[in-house]
Amino acid sequence: MRLADLAARLDARLDGDGDRRILRVAPLDTAGSDALAGLFERRFREAAGRTEAAAVVVDEALAEALPPGCARLVHPEPRAAWGNALRLLHPRPPLTPPPPGIDPRAVVHPTAQVAPDARVGPFAVVDAEARVGPGAAIFAFVHVGPGAVVGPDAVLATRASVLDGCAIGAGSWIGPGAVIGSVGFGIDRAGRLPHVGRVRVGAGVTIGAQSCVDRATVGETVIGDGAHLDNLVQVGHNAHIGPRAVLCGQVGIAGGARIGAGVVIGGQAGVAGHVTVGPGVRLAAQSGVTKSLRAPGDYSGHPAEPNRARLRRLARERRGEHE
Amino acid sequence: MRLADLAARLDARLDGDGDRRILRVAPLDTAGSDALAGLFERRFREAAGRTEAAAVVVDEALAEALPPGCARLVHPEPRAAWGNALRLLHPRPPLTPPPPGIDPRAVVHPTAQVAPDARVGPFAVVDAEARVGPGAAIFAFVHVGPGAVVGPDAVLATRASVLDGCAIGAGSWIGPGAVIGSVGFGIDRAGRLPHVGRVRVGAGVTIGAQSCVDRATVGETVIGDGAHLDNLVQVGHNAHIGPRAVLCGQVGIAGGARIGAGVVIGGQAGVAGHVTVGPGVRLAAQSGVTKSLRAPGDYSGHPAEPNRARLRRLARERRGEHE
Amino acid sequence: MRLADLAARLDARLDGDGDRRILRVAPLDTAGSDALAGLFERRFREAAGRTEAAAVVVDEALAEALPPGCARLVHPEPRAAWGNALRLLHPRPPLTPPPPGIDPRAVVHPTAQVAPDARVGPFAVVDAEARVGPGAAIFAFVHVGPGAVVGPDAVLATRASVLDGCAIGAGSWIGPGAVIGSVGFGIDRAGRLPHVGRVRVGAGVTIGAQSCVDRATVGETVIGDGAHLDNLVQVGHNAHIGPRAVLCGQVGIAGGARIGAGVVIGGQAGVAGHVTVGPGVRLAAQSGVTKSLRAPGDYSGHPAEPNRARLRRLARERRGEHE
Repeated sequence: MRLADLAARLDARLDGDGDRRILRVAPLDTAGSDALAGLFERRFREAAGRTEAAAVVVDEALAEALPPGCARLVHPEPRAAWGNALRLLHPRPPLTPPPPGIDPRAVVHPTAQVAPDARVGPFAVVDAEARVGPGAAIFAFVHVGPGAVVGPDAVLATRASVLDGCAIGAGSWIGPGAVIGSVGFGIDRAGRLPHVGRVRVGAGVTIGAQSCVDRATVGETVIGDGAHLDNLVQVGHNAHIGPRAVLCGQVGIAGGARIGAGVVIGGQAGVAGHVTVGPGVRLAAQSGVTKSLRAPGDYSGHPAEPNRARLRRLARERRGEHE
Repeated sequence: MRLADLAARLDARLDGDGDRRILRVAPLDTAGSDALAGLFERRFREAAGRTEAAAVVVDEALAEALPPGCARLVHPEPRAAWGNALRLLHPRPPLTPPPPGIDPRAVVHPTAQVAPDARVGPFAVVDAEARVGPGAAIFAFVHVGPGAVVGPDAVLATRASVLDGCAIGAGSWIGPGAVIGSVGFGIDRAGRLPHVGRVRVGAGVTIGAQSCVDRATVGETVIGDGAHLDNLVQVGHNAHIGPRAVLCGQVGIAGGARIGAGVVIGGQAGVAGHVTVGPGVRLAAQSGVTKSLRAPGDYSGHPAEPNRARLRRLARERRGEHE
Repeated sequence: MRLADLAARLDARLDGDGDRRILRVAPLDTAGSDALAGLFERRFREAAGRTEAAAVVVDEALAEALPPGCARLVHPEPRAAWGNALRLLHPRPPLTPPPPGIDPRAVVHPTAQVAPDARVGPFAVVDAEARVGPGAAIFAFVHVGPGAVVGPDAVLATRASVLDGCAIGAGSWIGPGAVIGSVGFGIDRAGRLPHVGRVRVGAGVTIGAQSCVDRATVGETVIGDGAHLDNLVQVGHNAHIGPRAVLCGQVGIAGGARIGAGVVIGGQAGVAGHVTVGPGVRLAAQSGVTKSLRAPGDYSGHPAEPNRARLRRLARERRGEHE
């Protein structure tokens, strides 16, 4: 793509030769003369000064750090512009889907419905009464259980499982090895309960590698539209994750918890069963929520408390050691 | 099932029309006229007042919260009665097993022994000298390693792995993607040790999705009868988990630790290598055990200490902020 | 193996009958007359006094705890000698690889290159342009993505995935279900970024069951030579794990973090995005690193601080309860 065209698509101001050809996005320190890089933080100024990238996405303040021969794509929000450049220059998905059609080594039950343009890879299993929508991609080793529904353009990466009766919304991405719809951890004296509910994943969701979302005991476990879950995340039975919530790696949400729209939860944090985390809450990594948090704001610690209060106390305690 | 028959099976007192037909268990807020629901906590009284369920399992104290047309199954332990109703009304397992017999797309080694009524799904691998007992179910993508033993009526869900020489007891359930018998994390200067021991899982155990139980360096890693492990749990080499212990999601038990009978460990908690957690201990979520805990009781924090002491100190510290 | 030969190979002093035949290594309490055991800690003296092992690896100080009929292999570093005995007496890998050659039920793309003596098991998928080196073992259900490279003698255990363009170094071991090269968790307002980089795993690395190493957004995520990762570990996009680092179970390393050579990180600990943990740091289990740690030493807590300072404060706080 010509640099001038790229600048126009990104709504960025171009300082430099618009005829250069950009083939890829690359890191500042390894980018070559066909590559675009990004500079977003002051601490990378020195590396930026040595870059051999053809062009760099940058804001006004940091633009002067770049070497003279390097073109600038100046944008007030350089990180967002850089993300869009990544999407424009690398339109193919990073994990290659199987070709359209059903691989002859897949097992598709006669009562399953697979859209003609869907992709089903080798050693995939699509069980009775399951439905796979148009444009969907079912990678190798994926298991679509009986009665499960995979929406249009959804992607189930290598050996993801979407088990009995669960539903995945349009355009959602289920990462390698993720398990949607295993049996929840509701137990009583007689053992594990049957868990006859299901999981409903909304549209535009991404769920990372090896994450688990358990089916409801009765009713539904819900992942709202546009939510993003990282790898190795655990969502218990009957939990509700709000739209556009962000759950970082190894987060655990216990059964029946309700996470509000747009909540952000840092890595390895946990939320206890049946509590509510309201919209606008941001939870630090490794924090633990044991009671409902309804006021928006930043929280941390175990049990989680407003961030500011906790950090003030930690500072005071640590000063105390030297007194 | 007729409501009167259900009441008799649950040993509950019926207030209402015994001729109603109950087909399923459902949540209070979505249950229809063919469904049974449960009411166990005061905070759901309001929802209960609007339920359209045919009948609700409830204790005496909360029965008055239900609308007039709704039948009651009154029981002193409504949660237990409701669990039993779930088992009676939904006898089929939530994850559909493959049909009896060996799927033609499975690979079963000629020296493996598979009981005639066992179920082996497509793309399952049963290696040399392995044994699969009567009534056992081996789902798609399951790997039963060389010499491994799957007991009668045990279930290995989608792509579970039971590796070389490991044993699963009667009626146990190994969840989707769980790995039983990987190589432990005993390392020395020359690298990872060979780990020539095995894993022995008792009877009536359930192990959640994606959990890992490593084989012993020498000897056995043991999961006792009736223990329940949630998803993404890690059990290190040579650990012993006592009978009926309960390990919630993302718990980690390091190598050589011994967890007593009936111990309950909350989500994301960890137990260090070679320590002992005695019977009757209950560990809060996210706590960390670094030294043996022998006295029964509730513990929390990192390092874990008696719950009461920790909460008292936390309260005092947080008061301190406002002084 | 004759005990005298074993002693010579281990460079240990033999006290006892050198003509005994040793067939295996076993635990002190179950070892029989064909087995070697090890005694490394005083607390196992009593068990050692009752052992029926043919011989025990031990140092001078503990040798007297053994019963008279039991031969001793006396070594100043008995644990290391015992590890070497394990390697000598159990040369076969604990997880049996498929036989050499390509199983007829594997799918190997015509453009993939698989060395003639490599092993590819049933239901493995080796995609276009992938390369599998001499002596490598690809177990059942493994997915080697397009353009991925598996080095000589590397092992990909049952259903490990090495996805598009990622590389595994010589002799490395990727455990059951591990996912190398999933899409990272870089997100912006438009959703998850494409992540067009890759993962490069060095030589002599071991990565435990179900662990995840995400591909870089651009550039590389790196696991250095000789690093060891336990089970259920998460390594985010663009992280660098130094040579010989040790990451215990359920550790989480966020995107862009840099972990120095030989760093040891205890179970369930976490490192935030873009911070640096310098060589010589040892992080306690469950600790959380939010700022760079450059000085070598032992750290713990959240946020992580020098171990000694933290333990002193905890002791003071807990004393405070009884004042």
